[in-house]
Amino acid sequence: MANITKKVSWSSRGDDPAQGEGTPLLNGATEAARCTTRQFSGGNIFRIGRMSTVDLEEETNTEEDSVLSRPKEIPHNEKLLSLKYESLDYDNSENQLFLEEERRMSYMGFRCLEISRWVVCGLIGFLTGLIACFIDIVVENLAGVKYQVVKQNIEKFTEVGGLSISLILWAVLNSVFVMMGSVMVAFFEPIAAGSGIPQIKCYLNGVKIPRVVRLKTLVVKVFGVICSVAGGLAVGKEGPMIHSGAVVAAGVSQGRSTSLKKDFKIFEYFRRDTEKRDFVSAGAAAGVSAAFGAPVGGVLFSLEEGASFWNQMLTWRIFFASMMSTFTLNFFLSIYHGKTGDLSNPGLINFGRFESDSVEYNLYEIPIFIVMGALGGVLGALFNVLNYWLTIFRIRYVHRPCLQVMEAMLVAAVTATVSFAMIYFSNDCQPLGEDQAEEYPLQLFCADGEYNSMASAFFNTPERSVRSLFHNPPGSYNPLTLGVFTLSYFFLACWTYGLTVSAGVFIPSMLIGAAWGRLFGILLSTISSSTATWPDPGKYALIGAAAQLGGIVRMTLSLTVIMVEATGNVTYGLPIMLVLMTAKIVGDYFIEGLYDVHIKLQSVPFLHWEAPATSHSLTAREVMSSPVTSFNRIEKVGTIVDILSNTTTNHNGFPVVNELIDHNELGKICGLILRSQLIVLLKHKVFVERARSRLNQRKLQLKDFRDAYPRFPPIQSIHVSQDERECMMDLTEFMNPTPYTVPQETSLPRVFKLFRALGLRHLVVVDNENRVVGLVTRKDLARYHLGKHGLEEMQLAQT
Amino acid sequence: MANITKKVSWSSRGDDPAQGEGTPLLNGATEAARCTTRQFSGGNIFRIGRMSTVDLEEETNTEEDSVLSRPKEIPHNEKLLSLKYESLDYDNSENQLFLEEERRMSYMGFRCLEISRWVVCGLIGFLTGLIACFIDIVVENLAGVKYQVVKQNIEKFTEVGGLSISLILWAVLNSVFVMMGSVMVAFFEPIAAGSGIPQIKCYLNGVKIPRVVRLKTLVVKVFGVICSVAGGLAVGKEGPMIHSGAVVAAGVSQGRSTSLKKDFKIFEYFRRDTEKRDFVSAGAAAGVSAAFGAPVGGVLFSLEEGASFWNQMLTWRIFFASMMSTFTLNFFLSIYHGKTGDLSNPGLINFGRFESDSVEYNLYEIPIFIVMGALGGVLGALFNVLNYWLTIFRIRYVHRPCLQVMEAMLVAAVTATVSFAMIYFSNDCQPLGEDQAEEYPLQLFCADGEYNSMASAFFNTPERSVRSLFHNPPGSYNPLTLGVFTLSYFFLACWTYGLTVSAGVFIPSMLIGAAWGRLFGILLSTISSSTATWPDPGKYALIGAAAQLGGIVRMTLSLTVIMVEATGNVTYGLPIMLVLMTAKIVGDYFIEGLYDVHIKLQSVPFLHWEAPATSHSLTAREVMSSPVTSFNRIEKVGTIVDILSNTTTNHNGFPVVNELIDHNELGKICGLILRSQLIVLLKHKVFVERARSRLNQRKLQLKDFRDAYPRFPPIQSIHVSQDERECMMDLTEFMNPTPYTVPQETSLPRVFKLFRALGLRHLVVVDNENRVVGLVTRKDLARYHLGKHGLEEMQLAQT
Repeated sequence: MANITKKVSWSSRGDDPAQGEGTPLLNGATEAARCTTRQFSGGNIFRIGRMSTVDLEEETNTEEDSVLSRPKEIPHNEKLLSLKYESLDYDNSENQLFLEEERRMSYMGFRCLEISRWVVCGLIGFLTGLIACFIDIVVENLAGVKYQVVKQNIEKFTEVGGLSISLILWAVLNSVFVMMGSVMVAFFEPIAAGSGIPQIKCYLNGVKIPRVVRLKTLVVKVFGVICSVAGGLAVGKEGPMIHSGAVVAAGVSQGRSTSLKKDFKIFEYFRRDTEKRDFVSAGAAAGVSAAFGAPVGGVLFSLEEGASFWNQMLTWRIFFASMMSTFTLNFFLSIYHGKTGDLSNPGLINFGRFESDSVEYNLYEIPIFIVMGALGGVLGALFNVLNYWLTIFRIRYVHRPCLQVMEAMLVAAVTATVSFAMIYFSNDCQPLGEDQAEEYPLQLFCADGEYNSMASAFFNTPERSVRSLFHNPPGSYNPLTLGVFTLSYFFLACWTYGLTVSAGVFIPSMLIGAAWGRLFGILLSTISSSTATWPDPGKYALIGAAAQLGGIVRMTLSLTVIMVEATGNVTYGLPIMLVLMTAKIVGDYFIEGLYDVHIKLQSVPFLHWEAPATSHSLTAREVMSSPVTSFNRIEKVGTIVDILSNTTTNHNGFPVVNELIDHNELGKICGLILRSQLIVLLKHKVFVERARSRLNQRKLQLKDFRDAYPRFPPIQSIHVSQDERECMMDLTEFMNPTPYTVPQETSLPRVFKLFRALGLRHLVVVDNENRVVGLVTRKDLARYHLGKHGLEEMQLAQT
Repeated sequence: MANITKKVSWSSRGDDPAQGEGTPLLNGATEAARCTTRQFSGGNIFRIGRMSTVDLEEETNTEEDSVLSRPKEIPHNEKLLSLKYESLDYDNSENQLFLEEERRMSYMGFRCLEISRWVVCGLIGFLTGLIACFIDIVVENLAGVKYQVVKQNIEKFTEVGGLSISLILWAVLNSVFVMMGSVMVAFFEPIAAGSGIPQIKCYLNGVKIPRVVRLKTLVVKVFGVICSVAGGLAVGKEGPMIHSGAVVAAGVSQGRSTSLKKDFKIFEYFRRDTEKRDFVSAGAAAGVSAAFGAPVGGVLFSLEEGASFWNQMLTWRIFFASMMSTFTLNFFLSIYHGKTGDLSNPGLINFGRFESDSVEYNLYEIPIFIVMGALGGVLGALFNVLNYWLTIFRIRYVHRPCLQVMEAMLVAAVTATVSFAMIYFSNDCQPLGEDQAEEYPLQLFCADGEYNSMASAFFNTPERSVRSLFHNPPGSYNPLTLGVFTLSYFFLACWTYGLTVSAGVFIPSMLIGAAWGRLFGILLSTISSSTATWPDPGKYALIGAAAQLGGIVRMTLSLTVIMVEATGNVTYGLPIMLVLMTAKIVGDYFIEGLYDVHIKLQSVPFLHWEAPATSHSLTAREVMSSPVTSFNRIEKVGTIVDILSNTTTNHNGFPVVNELIDHNELGKICGLILRSQLIVLLKHKVFVERARSRLNQRKLQLKDFRDAYPRFPPIQSIHVSQDERECMMDLTEFMNPTPYTVPQETSLPRVFKLFRALGLRHLVVVDNENRVVGLVTRKDLARYHLGKHGLEEMQLAQT
């Protein structure tokens, strides 16, 4: 069915109930001509026009061939882009107020600013490290208490029979923990669910996800992750650390807390999207750094996710925050562990150091590693596909908070039951060594001096299990144990990700990979001559972990560095890279990475690195929203209020033009003003009477805008009297007088590059008389993507 | 003298003999008004206008107060920007030809392109690894032969007396090696001198340094570095590796060699600056990766130096090239060392692995590390200042090739003499252990079974000396030896850098640092109780090496990763970071990094990451070159030839405007065309007769432009007959129809950001009628920098 032009009836663009940041007026008629399906020379088919949400339900039904074998009535079609997300303004609004302030500032002023940026980054790192330390200690203790209680109970009942009571105890304990976490998340702050990495990815990409960097989110997140890890779910505490770091950064850098209604009157200069986002990058990096003891990996993570805007000074500050975070964590953990001042511990997860002797690898192992990478890619893709279905199911049927809590509790109970069954039916007894990492060795039915090796994988926090798989000497596990464990943990982890709890997917992925990797190593050593020492199972566990993780999340550069830093040995750098790249290439063939899947399911207008390769045929003229609602330089207050109040066109940016009488006429561009700025102007009633005498002499300052940032009141909350509606507002001083513009003929890749490189929110399209003819926003660009049949266009929807 | 407005007589801008990429016409009179000295609100003084080269000599004499205590008549004033450097065109010229090609290309076409990019990167990595391997093996063997001969000679004469003969032998051997290298560099390719890192930095920054990525340069570089390392100079072979990688990349990616007149007809798509520069980033990364066994460090190096343009796919390719390079090197070295297939060796330099027991550090050591960092910063600054003076001296007095060769030979002989004297007068005998790295232990006057420890530092390649300092057990060196060694090597290295030989500064810097670091460690252990094990001298040698290197080159992020990867242990990551940052902060207080010093001395228009902080007071109107030479869309051939032939205005980019009669009138912008494009058009005689019938029906294709790239013929070589001069040329198809433009009111930081983020070469400034009023080029932006008295402006000069 490739190359068959599918005929679909598109509603005209103008019927769209809301255009987000675009500003078209309602004149669909003129647009109708464009809403056709075109065939291009390269044989690629793509569609121009937008499907309104109303039409959508019918369309998905008639279009069965394109949604092939997917359940009908998916409310979150992946071909939709949501209009509810707004963009961050990474581009400064260089209006007169701003320029005046900058020009007033002396060189010393800028030095001070620079120093405060460093101070903020230091603080971010310190606080992130503290939070990581807190989570780690609380989790360790809670899990410790839980496992001790269950262990004693099991030991008590092993002899006398009635182990089902132990099972119930374990399941109940798990469920209670998970219930607490899940209730918090489901009822108080749903955005705190999951690992938070997709949300932070979006934020760094420039999409404002509502409530993602609020204090409340942080509290729920921290509490939630403690509960879910202590509750024995197949989750890690690392992803949430990254989110926590980002929230800390957003909070600290603003010098105030809107939630706590506390303003410290510091760092006021940083109260805009540009600065805030830079700090959030630092926070995310500090989070990674604390979670994995990987400061360089943290920096690379931030770069990989939000990188088109970086510069050297920013990178150094990010690096500093990362460094502070690892340092703080190590310092406080060293105190906690009674070895004050010993800073050589890595971060939250410690996979133990790989020593040089077991570390060597040979050329002939490279193909084996690559095969493992491919396997990881396939398994990762399977994981993602299953999780994709599950998430769709959840979106459709499990959307009520109480159902979500119940599902989480169910998973917790099932996890305990499966683990218990595995341990119970396993008869893999291993001698109890001295140097092993087991903290809670379960004897169960083993002989004295032995322990159940299945329990070392299941009856433990996942981090410890990974470490055991990496470092226990050859022969610690038998292949059957590992196989069964891999299988069951794979499905458990897949079921768990996406539950309404705060939890990361890094550690479970690594655990799955380490298990099958070790199994792989054991099989290899069976196949090869028995005297060969090269197939060290620990080494293969590491490679397997990398392969599985790479197959699921599809990061390469930062993940390599994180793995290298977390294992404390650079020798494996090369094989890990190879494995991660193979896993990515193989996995990408089937489905995107887990985070991208979830971003797509949320219909976030995410901008990739480059415009789709075949999009040179499109120009700004075809991409832009048009016509545009523009304002005059001196505009009537009533007009402004009406346009802002128009809920069907929820625009955020308005070109300011010269001498415009009719709002449909094209005026010469002379600036760009944002909804938020207009709101502040209206609130402070900066009006001029028609007679040009000042009605209100109070001069607005940048401070007024900064105080309102980032929660600008809605237009409905601002009362404008009928008299005031007749006044005029002079926008000259407040608009950005030099917005970036492009001519209509500019190709999409060129527009895209400008947009992405500068982090724009609005890009004005002008004709060759410099008249405004259109406006390009993030959603206009994010709509185009490369599908199987060439360039495709997504629809915009209200959800 | 701060805040005193210095009066200098500026020649008007129009008198400038050449404007490089700017395109002002000769009407200095209208510009005279701007050539005044202004005082700004912040108390910052800066100058507007440019000093012509003719005036310069007088000015530097009358302006003694500003050049304070510097030798008079410096031809290379650091306040000058040279006009001889052109910019790379990172921004694609999206003209009709290009767009047609892109639109013709199918999705599969783009896939193939993407795959060939990966293939090219793989090849780059492979070849760079091979070259590294070649250099390493040849250097090891040559140095081995040399040291064996000298050792035997010394042993022969130690007993019988007459060691002066050994000294002469050593000095002559060194001088001969160095002479060969120096002759090659001085007479055949002077650009191959030095480490090449400053040149690559410039290239990645967007400056086209003539001949820097040519095959001849590569050959001379490789030969030169072998000679200088084998010649016993205080140099390393690592910097040149980075340059070699870059040349390999530039060559391979073009699929042809202009020098060898061989065109493989492949990779023709990559024949433009954008693609080439991306590959050169990969090549530089592969070079770092091969030199230090640091693939991640290589990627970060490329990012740190050329980063504003990166995106994820590019980074992955760079990473792949790095990986391939380390892999190739390791593979071939493993064959060479007879351990085929053992790939765990790191790259060219192997500092040996730091094992965990000696690795730990404590909180109380952090302040010590920071002190060492500060010390490294001071010593590094001293090194740079001395080298700065030396370079100025060399520019003035040692500019003839034969003098340069003689200086290099002198340094070689002095190095041998100093080394010999050090060894001779040292009576620091150490027992000959079994596990030590000494390959050429000199017994000299020591008892049997002992060796001279000064010789282990001097009688060795610098890499091996560093390794000895890192890993020899405590007590291997006595403090006096280390002190004297540090002192003498410091001055030798400082004298050596900047000689007309191919040589890097990484290893000598590390050697100096390792020596004083070890000394520091020994002193610490003397001060502290004798039983304390923490002041392991090897650890302090490592920290010292980082501090010294950081103090000299001032890299932080990439250097940290390089050090971590080269020492094979991540535990030291944190202290190394701290040390590098301290060294940078302290060092920056005195003078810039060594590479930046040399870039400045070459008057390269280097763009930093951000516009100077206090430059918001400037707008595009003040920065731009104006008026601009523009062409009509359909222009007379004679006019084009005349304008291109005008040697006084050596412009490279011309706005194309609508309906322009007088060339001084302002026309509406409709495109931008480059000198190189016009040259190709003229060469192929794509003319239209006045009667609009085609004179020449041959249609130009992109291929014609690609074939001419990058060595476009000069305009003088193109013959245009008098008849042809009367023809017209239609530029519509060839110009870039959508150049980026900014309004005149745009602030300098905003212009800068656009310029830097997109890697522009020309930025057209338009008024609000879209008429061309000026043109901003790299030199216009690079002119402004923050001096001690606020914003300063540099002058442009022909040199």
